[in-house]
Amino acid sequence: MTYNQEKWKWINGGVAAPIGFYANGVHAGIRKKGKYDIAVVLSETAAQAAGVFTRNKVKAHPLLLTQKHLLNGQAQAIVVNSGNANACVGEAGDKAALAMAQETAASLGLPVEDVLVASTGVIGVEMPVDTVITGISMAAAELKEHQLLSEDGLASRIDGARRAALAIMTTDTTMKECAFELPCQGGTIRLGAMAKGSGMIHPNMGTMLGFLTTDACVSAPELQRLLRLAVEESFNMVTVDGDTSTNDMVLFLANGASGITPSGEDWEQFEKMVRVMCTYLAKEIARDGEGASKFLEVYVKGAKTINDARLIAKSICGSSLVKTAVFGEDANWGRILAAAGYSGADFNPAKADISIGDIYVAQRGHGIVFSEEAAGKNLQQKEIKITVDLHNGCEEATAWGCDLTHQYVTINGSYRT
Amino acid sequence: MTYNQEKWKWINGGVAAPIGFYANGVHAGIRKKGKYDIAVVLSETAAQAAGVFTRNKVKAHPLLLTQKHLLNGQAQAIVVNSGNANACVGEAGDKAALAMAQETAASLGLPVEDVLVASTGVIGVEMPVDTVITGISMAAAELKEHQLLSEDGLASRIDGARRAALAIMTTDTTMKECAFELPCQGGTIRLGAMAKGSGMIHPNMGTMLGFLTTDACVSAPELQRLLRLAVEESFNMVTVDGDTSTNDMVLFLANGASGITPSGEDWEQFEKMVRVMCTYLAKEIARDGEGASKFLEVYVKGAKTINDARLIAKSICGSSLVKTAVFGEDANWGRILAAAGYSGADFNPAKADISIGDIYVAQRGHGIVFSEEAAGKNLQQKEIKITVDLHNGCEEATAWGCDLTHQYVTINGSYRT
Repeated sequence: MTYNQEKWKWINGGVAAPIGFYANGVHAGIRKKGKYDIAVVLSETAAQAAGVFTRNKVKAHPLLLTQKHLLNGQAQAIVVNSGNANACVGEAGDKAALAMAQETAASLGLPVEDVLVASTGVIGVEMPVDTVITGISMAAAELKEHQLLSEDGLASRIDGARRAALAIMTTDTTMKECAFELPCQGGTIRLGAMAKGSGMIHPNMGTMLGFLTTDACVSAPELQRLLRLAVEESFNMVTVDGDTSTNDMVLFLANGASGITPSGEDWEQFEKMVRVMCTYLAKEIARDGEGASKFLEVYVKGAKTINDARLIAKSICGSSLVKTAVFGEDANWGRILAAAGYSGADFNPAKADISIGDIYVAQRGHGIVFSEEAAGKNLQQKEIKITVDLHNGCEEATAWGCDLTHQYVTINGSYRT
Repeated sequence: MTYNQEKWKWINGGVAAPIGFYANGVHAGIRKKGKYDIAVVLSETAAQAAGVFTRNKVKAHPLLLTQKHLLNGQAQAIVVNSGNANACVGEAGDKAALAMAQETAASLGLPVEDVLVASTGVIGVEMPVDTVITGISMAAAELKEHQLLSEDGLASRIDGARRAALAIMTTDTTMKECAFELPCQGGTIRLGAMAKGSGMIHPNMGTMLGFLTTDACVSAPELQRLLRLAVEESFNMVTVDGDTSTNDMVLFLANGASGITPSGEDWEQFEKMVRVMCTYLAKEIARDGEGASKFLEVYVKGAKTINDARLIAKSICGSSLVKTAVFGEDANWGRILAAAGYSGADFNPAKADISIGDIYVAQRGHGIVFSEEAAGKNLQQKEIKITVDLHNGCEEATAWGCDLTHQYVTINGSYRT
């Protein structure tokens, strides 16, 4: 994808950048003092809604509730907590998820079916429901007072969106949000998003949390189609540790507050804008991989099918041996080819070219003489690009990840404690 | 499998324990000074032969030659080098593998087609053929002088087998060999083996090198069937880092030198003996996982199919998050259930029980109150057993692996250098 003609521009405001969207984040007490842990996103009117969800057979309680509430393709608010996944805790988990939706609905004056719920954090520990409910009530009250009912306007909405983006973080070290605006026939439409993800990240939509908002008029089925397309090539191409989570979802709300239904060239631009935004967030997640010291991009071209290209890109990006070689700045390209070999994709190893940065390290499936010094220099960068040309067709795919470091082991050796 | 009635006993001699087998290992100069790097195994007469091989699409040059030489189900010698995988180096690789077979055949007076070749080490670097050839010649000459043509007998064969087992090691920290003898109707049959493997180990027979020998009379097809059965439940259930190698194989030679064709109950014992030996070696490999500080056994029972049981056991055993939790001695059972959930197996998470050692940490898919202290004490052991009961059928499987440590990252960050 190239976007030479992109007409949109970056703006502030994250999920609250589109007209009629508000957001807030507070510290309720699920996480340590000083860390936000409850986020609320509200649309002034009921919005068209779409979602994609983890493929893990073990599904968190809020995820099941959200799927139910999405059946009619409509939602008006999203409530998220960090610090507890609300997964694998039985009936208490279903009750806790419902209580979160009920409190959000009551605080903001909405039908409970129009509230979507997401959680992230440790699995298998019961939610501190009272703490969460108090937090939601506080977040909603602040949101109403400082945004809905005040004249503070944009600045306050930008602040609220930022707090929401902070509140969905767990081991993330950076907040992930962005917003775009696109001039269209008859006016402007806006797109906003926030995301979180750092560990337990792996293709299959078992990736992370992502929330997109727009003030364009888009129907729920169209929104769902677009979201799935964008997720396939973005969030589903990120791999940090191969572990597909129980909780992860990407939701997309379109409230139509701009009054504009993009069509023709405007629709094309809108579609591209959504895909670019998802890709941007996916890369931000890979960059923030747990313990990562380097960002890894694997670009596979010349594949027979896009599925083959994706399988190979993800397999290389997820290989522990490739990841440790990147960490060790070692141009060990044999591991790259080996990871392609066990990806399950169809290709002929004897035709594959491999380069690290701008240095070819293998051609036609076998090693060539290359400057170890130059390859080493490429590997010393913070961003490493591996390219594999299969010479087997015209399809291509890119996957993103990070190196495997001592720090990853440290973080995950003591996550609960 | 329980082996209350096992009739065999452990003996010395590794691959050279069965009658008519000889082995040797030398330092040729592929690896650092003082490290053996060429192993030769010889049967006095042509043996029935079987093999199973990596499923990686990228296959090393010696592996392809060995598959060709196995087509007639017969072999008399195996030559192995460590320090270089002889993979992904094009035509030079095919030539190097053939040269190894030719030198072994010439030195020992065999047809070249009866020599099987295996390599392990770094991928994508051309073999130092002259060094390897000199090493083979030396190994064969010593083997003839001190074993075939001498009166030194068993002691010298035991020494030779041990040197061979040392010569196939790479990042292994322990030598892996064993031998059994089984009293049968009419005499005794023996079974010997050596194996290597430490990193780049993952199910799909992309695991490691293993060489089995026996002096029983067994036909090649029967040997092949038995080997595949044993490998499925042993070597294929070991996972260290999820990377399936280009080089790995398990070979099995039966020279019939005992004059005994096991049948009836003797065959049953022989079959069990082979399976127990493969399982023993597989566990030795898991125990020696790169950088491992703890051995991990995952036992899944109550599965609907054996395939489901295996998928789940391997998925848990291979999860980076489970492995780091084991390293960190953290009873984070949610990660165990999540790894089962993305294994691709069919089961109902709401029926699964999980225990760590003898402590139940989850029942019917959700957390129960357990003593963190007792669970922590179990996790402080060197050997950790995780049991998952799916309550979904009668099938079971066990997988073996190890924790993910800082040391793994260190080893693999600088493998080539």
